[in-house]
Amino acid sequence: MKAAILGATSYGSRELIKWLLRHPAGVKLSYLGSRQEGMKVSDVFPVFEGVLDVAYQPHDPDAVPEDTDVVFLTLPHTVPMECVPRLLERGFRVIDFSGDYRLRNVDVYEKHYKHGHTDPANIEEAVYGLPEFFADEIAKAQLVANPGCYPTAAILSIAPLAKHGLIEMDSIIVDAKSGVSGAGNKPKPDYHFPHCNESVHAYKVGAHQHEPEIAQYLGDLAGAEANVLFVPHLIPMDRGIFSTAYANLKKAVDEEELRSLVTEFYENAPFIRVKQGENLPRTKDTIDTNFCDIGVRVVGQRAVVVACLDNLAKGMATQAIQNMNIMFGLKQTDGLV
Amino acid sequence: MKAAILGATSYGSRELIKWLLRHPAGVKLSYLGSRQEGMKVSDVFPVFEGVLDVAYQPHDPDAVPEDTDVVFLTLPHTVPMECVPRLLERGFRVIDFSGDYRLRNVDVYEKHYKHGHTDPANIEEAVYGLPEFFADEIAKAQLVANPGCYPTAAILSIAPLAKHGLIEMDSIIVDAKSGVSGAGNKPKPDYHFPHCNESVHAYKVGAHQHEPEIAQYLGDLAGAEANVLFVPHLIPMDRGIFSTAYANLKKAVDEEELRSLVTEFYENAPFIRVKQGENLPRTKDTIDTNFCDIGVRVVGQRAVVVACLDNLAKGMATQAIQNMNIMFGLKQTDGLV
Amino acid sequence: MKAAILGATSYGSRELIKWLLRHPAGVKLSYLGSRQEGMKVSDVFPVFEGVLDVAYQPHDPDAVPEDTDVVFLTLPHTVPMECVPRLLERGFRVIDFSGDYRLRNVDVYEKHYKHGHTDPANIEEAVYGLPEFFADEIAKAQLVANPGCYPTAAILSIAPLAKHGLIEMDSIIVDAKSGVSGAGNKPKPDYHFPHCNESVHAYKVGAHQHEPEIAQYLGDLAGAEANVLFVPHLIPMDRGIFSTAYANLKKAVDEEELRSLVTEFYENAPFIRVKQGENLPRTKDTIDTNFCDIGVRVVGQRAVVVACLDNLAKGMATQAIQNMNIMFGLKQTDGLV
Amino acid sequence: MKAAILGATSYGSRELIKWLLRHPAGVKLSYLGSRQEGMKVSDVFPVFEGVLDVAYQPHDPDAVPEDTDVVFLTLPHTVPMECVPRLLERGFRVIDFSGDYRLRNVDVYEKHYKHGHTDPANIEEAVYGLPEFFADEIAKAQLVANPGCYPTAAILSIAPLAKHGLIEMDSIIVDAKSGVSGAGNKPKPDYHFPHCNESVHAYKVGAHQHEPEIAQYLGDLAGAEANVLFVPHLIPMDRGIFSTAYANLKKAVDEEELRSLVTEFYENAPFIRVKQGENLPRTKDTIDTNFCDIGVRVVGQRAVVVACLDNLAKGMATQAIQNMNIMFGLKQTDGLV
Repeated sequence: MKAAILGATSYGSRELIKWLLRHPAGVKLSYLGSRQEGMKVSDVFPVFEGVLDVAYQPHDPDAVPEDTDVVFLTLPHTVPMECVPRLLERGFRVIDFSGDYRLRNVDVYEKHYKHGHTDPANIEEAVYGLPEFFADEIAKAQLVANPGCYPTAAILSIAPLAKHGLIEMDSIIVDAKSGVSGAGNKPKPDYHFPHCNESVHAYKVGAHQHEPEIAQYLGDLAGAEANVLFVPHLIPMDRGIFSTAYANLKKAVDEEELRSLVTEFYENAPFIRVKQGENLPRTKDTIDTNFCDIGVRVVGQRAVVVACLDNLAKGMATQAIQNMNIMFGLKQTDGLV
Repeated sequence: MKAAILGATSYGSRELIKWLLRHPAGVKLSYLGSRQEGMKVSDVFPVFEGVLDVAYQPHDPDAVPEDTDVVFLTLPHTVPMECVPRLLERGFRVIDFSGDYRLRNVDVYEKHYKHGHTDPANIEEAVYGLPEFFADEIAKAQLVANPGCYPTAAILSIAPLAKHGLIEMDSIIVDAKSGVSGAGNKPKPDYHFPHCNESVHAYKVGAHQHEPEIAQYLGDLAGAEANVLFVPHLIPMDRGIFSTAYANLKKAVDEEELRSLVTEFYENAPFIRVKQGENLPRTKDTIDTNFCDIGVRVVGQRAVVVACLDNLAKGMATQAIQNMNIMFGLKQTDGLV
Repeated sequence: MKAAILGATSYGSRELIKWLLRHPAGVKLSYLGSRQEGMKVSDVFPVFEGVLDVAYQPHDPDAVPEDTDVVFLTLPHTVPMECVPRLLERGFRVIDFSGDYRLRNVDVYEKHYKHGHTDPANIEEAVYGLPEFFADEIAKAQLVANPGCYPTAAILSIAPLAKHGLIEMDSIIVDAKSGVSGAGNKPKPDYHFPHCNESVHAYKVGAHQHEPEIAQYLGDLAGAEANVLFVPHLIPMDRGIFSTAYANLKKAVDEEELRSLVTEFYENAPFIRVKQGENLPRTKDTIDTNFCDIGVRVVGQRAVVVACLDNLAKGMATQAIQNMNIMFGLKQTDGLV
Repeated sequence: MKAAILGATSYGSRELIKWLLRHPAGVKLSYLGSRQEGMKVSDVFPVFEGVLDVAYQPHDPDAVPEDTDVVFLTLPHTVPMECVPRLLERGFRVIDFSGDYRLRNVDVYEKHYKHGHTDPANIEEAVYGLPEFFADEIAKAQLVANPGCYPTAAILSIAPLAKHGLIEMDSIIVDAKSGVSGAGNKPKPDYHFPHCNESVHAYKVGAHQHEPEIAQYLGDLAGAEANVLFVPHLIPMDRGIFSTAYANLKKAVDEEELRSLVTEFYENAPFIRVKQGENLPRTKDTIDTNFCDIGVRVVGQRAVVVACLDNLAKGMATQAIQNMNIMFGLKQTDGLV
């Protein structure tokens, strides 16, 4: 199998490369495109010295070799929409890490990403790459919109309750905590070590671009509009997302019953682990894995469902590989456990 | 002025000592009691070597010198109730850091602290040491129940809305994030560096002993029963609490108006800083200060009020000194800015 | 292939299990012994839930199944010497993570490990598991003494200079910095998060049990007694060792020449990466890999050679797998890149 | 007393302001100059909101008010030499945080700071602000060159041995470890949280601008040329420097004797704490204090002397206040304990 990556200098692409090199299908990297062309991959990621001693090629979608099977786009939001039409035309199957093809409503996209959308046609073609719900569509998709890290955690945690109609869909609050790698690799004052170390803060309260993504897919699952309040926080750690979701139960539910329901809901999902009894998940147990760990509590008339995952793995790179596995008829778990 | 400390080996007492030594009233430490009697203070806290070269005295409330003005109890929950009656009888004014005298309802105490209460009589005498609301009572109190770190942040953030009757008192959710010093200085697996570093998790979901403390005082302020869901999380940092409170607004409120209301509410509170405009607080800006920083957002029909403070300062030691200042007719800010 | 692990609850065994499960030779875990028998592996290491759902078996060397190919001992120092004789007698090949079989001189062992040695006979049989130097002996060994984390970094960095006779063997200083996982998984005051976070200190100055290990093997390589001063420091991070070695050059050497010499020295060592030009290594680029990265500087008449690696990988678990590969005729790099 | 600060947006000036505001001499900040003029101090340092609600004034040495007693320069290297002549002419006493006036030899300065020196005349007037050695000169100085953070730790640790002629002055190695705030507040790739967190590396090996500063003053103390090899490392923590110094002893010295000698050497130095017996210092015990903690070991024919301090306090801002105290006839410890 041959895979290309455009935008191959991001943290997400570093993880993608690491996991692809390990993949039992013998994935070959046919093209690593970047605006930092000419630099060696190991100059940007010294961890790959002696492992992948090649140089970046230009950031040029048209230069992706014809015999490439899958193209991963690990580019900043708004860049993929320039590349995707040309890649799809040439017949490539594409997995896009950005938000460009996740939202059905172009207006919502433009409002949250503060940028016009130049490829609305392909939004409809795109399949949301959350394999726990859309595996059949992913298998046939030419374009997969790989989910955001926050939405992966939030949707997976609330989905069973939404789908079973147990919660009031306008009562959902997601209070999320993320490690700093989620902000990318570009130095900025907010991510300067002496500034963000030993500190916590909230940002983009009720205004983060992942909020409509969560609402859209939870709404789909519930068959009803979802009103989600999403509040992200920055945590002084490299990786990991912890999502604490709150929702009002329509009627009293026993905690143990709710936990069983969530457990059964994910019975066939190899990467979802529902904690039993008193146990609650910790981000650390999911780092560098494709697992999303879920914990369930009922407090009075409210459900509290926590979920955690590695923002660069199940929240990004390994989820993309899970999608690739499905698209190419491999076992979902290939190269991921 | 002469101050005694019982339980003087905790992190809270370390901070208390540091700030007392700096106090312009020239506070003398008349007694430092501990079960580690005989050890030097600087053996436990090397930071005090050359600053406070004395040894601990026994943990014995009866040995507190007669001429002591104020006794701080920085003891584990359930120990203060053994000491307080004897100290009050001897006429000392007492500031207790534990939860023993914060809850009016003995049953609620016994349920949450899993321990019988042997001194219910003095619960009624105790004044809750949140100076922003109870300064007059604190001034006259013989026994001050110094608030918990989480409740200080949560109550201060929600109080203006509760007091003004703007929110549904059964809709309050407090999602809090705390540094590890909040768990005390005793090594346990959960606080072992390679275990809790680079990780986040929730604990005691809807079952933390600070939940009824928050509900009781918010209910008092609102003149209505408060139903609070409190979910604490452990964050890999030494100090700091970030509290994110959610509540349904009874009717639509403009964000700027709400912010003005909160700002005015704390007009005369020297240690509350309400962030204006787009600004939101960060724990780091409150560390080693007695400030509680507050940020206000309105999202749809919900208010989101965030607050942060140093769990060992405004959440504990400096708040105690603020109480001491008030009790002894000093300026509230003496030794604290 | 079948592998057993005794002492399978340590951080080292967690990493060992992770890498063995991924190994292309299809390594089966035939026995996971622990004094915490009965507990599930995923109770101790939740990261393995859904991956390895088995319970620990008793800590009993005699219970290791007959058809096991290799037994890994991830036990505390002094325990392996009780197990090794019985395991060797039964014909197993053994890779021991402890210091029990690394030092030729029993007196030196007893002095540094503060414990009598009950199996001196097998010390002579043991091969030191540093594949860069002893691959041929490892291939034939029944008992491999897997090196310590500090010595792996220190020896690998200084070896080329020692072997080429470039440095004064009594001038070697190794100033090493280690993440906290090197101290094991048992909570102690020194490793309590609020105590060791945001702090650095030196410990066991010139008295660490790894000092004679470094000296012994460097002496062997140089064919002359080595006098090494070893000073370890604890760093607030989970994993990683950074070793800064200083030695007096016997005669002036050009830095570029010395770098070339070190580079050539490791030409056939797939896991040693010698940084070229101005580049110096960082621990982070070696974490979760079997690489040891080396940097070379000449300052006046002194050589400064830095090395870094993951204390739980090349400093422990993956080095053990590299040894296993060699012992069983596999490619050294199998399952490790 | 009136103090001005030029360059008042650096981490060092934040600490300086904090300690000055607390100073018992009632220090008034007469001028806070910065190129970020017009911004409020609390915009740059939110910790000062409600404490110091003023705006920055222009970066203009000539605008410093006439009645200012002392001018602190917390500017980047090479900027002070433009301001100092004008400030001295106007009669101000100046404490400069930069390296501009620390090195006697202009060539050495120009080589290490890669910048011509435009004010060599005043280098000779400047007194090195290490109060443990130069208190008399500081008392009379118009220009004090406040020492670098690394040199403060290194010189203080080695000085007693150098002064007593116990060590070979060409054998000194200083292996230092610093928190990230030492690198300043400007975001760069090396200090981007996900890059430098959980990692250690060495930098500027034998080429750091603090090396000649250490050598010059140790040489002075010994009355002999000092050859110092200085190797700094970056540690994932906010603050703190740990310096591990190695030197060959001219003749055998008993460790306890050496410790007594160092202890006596600093008998009258209120901010030096020499650890006794088995104790060794930790950076954390010096953070936010003006203390430098020292530990002494003898291993064979070598002395190992470790020292730690807060790079922003004794390594910068509080040392400057200690100097100010001395310059203005105050008690050395005023406002510092």
